[in-house]
Amino acid sequence: MSLEFDESVVKVERLLRHVAFIIKKRGREILEDFEITNPQFNALLTLRDHPDITMGELCEKLFLACSTATDLIDRLEKNGYLERRRDPQDRRVIRLSISDKGRHVISEVIAARRRYVASILKQLSQEEIDRLAESLEKLHSLMFAENVV
Amino acid sequence: MSLEFDESVVKVERLLRHVAFIIKKRGREILEDFEITNPQFNALLTLRDHPDITMGELCEKLFLACSTATDLIDRLEKNGYLERRRDPQDRRVIRLSISDKGRHVISEVIAARRRYVASILKQLSQEEIDRLAESLEKLHSLMFAENVV
Repeated sequence: MSLEFDESVVKVERLLRHVAFIIKKRGREILEDFEITNPQFNALLTLRDHPDITMGELCEKLFLACSTATDLIDRLEKNGYLERRRDPQDRRVIRLSISDKGRHVISEVIAARRRYVASILKQLSQEEIDRLAESLEKLHSLMFAENVV
Repeated sequence: MSLEFDESVVKVERLLRHVAFIIKKRGREILEDFEITNPQFNALLTLRDHPDITMGELCEKLFLACSTATDLIDRLEKNGYLERRRDPQDRRVIRLSISDKGRHVISEVIAARRRYVASILKQLSQEEIDRLAESLEKLHSLMFAENVV
């Protein structure tokens, strides 16, 4: 099966899968302290970056079925992480915005994730860190471009 | 908040979060074609790599609560991806093993993931690919070591 692919493709696929798995696991452990789930955290980040987003736009950005996103938003609202209000121009439209409590939890979670990344990077030389950052930057821009097509 | 961290920590944390998000989304899209979920796929990989694993060991390796893992295993068994049998030495112990259908789905999913990675890497020079692979290798070994502590 692997013979049809170049050795570096096989290697990079495996490494990305393993790194993404550990990142996700670590992220989940960090979120446990704040009693929110990974999809809820991604929703909060999207709300922060897109003020007054509608439910429909949010589902699209999270790549979630709207029924799933609605449950998630209900729970976040109940816990005080966001506010939901009717659009004054069109009362049928619901707009969502992140609360101060929501912003605060994002800062705390990102700080915890940075502490984790810092603990890893301190084991590398500055040159290795620069090369890692450059490689990830390139990889991300190609993946992002491919993703939005 | 970010002032307490080095610029490269801030950058690498953000890039890893974004890359892991896209990898997960892509992975989920690939798995949709095979009608299995991400946690089910991770369970299959673990079963392949650890023949005759017990339920308890599987929960541990997947970092899942045993109730969650049991639902997941029930579904995989129902769809013919694994076999469950009693240990002949100790009839109270249930051992799990992957079926041919399970192995086949893993090969197909990994091949689809490799096609995706190949489509990204073909936009890089061989030198850039080598540097990416090397950086990821280093990152993975540090994350893995930190993870098993």
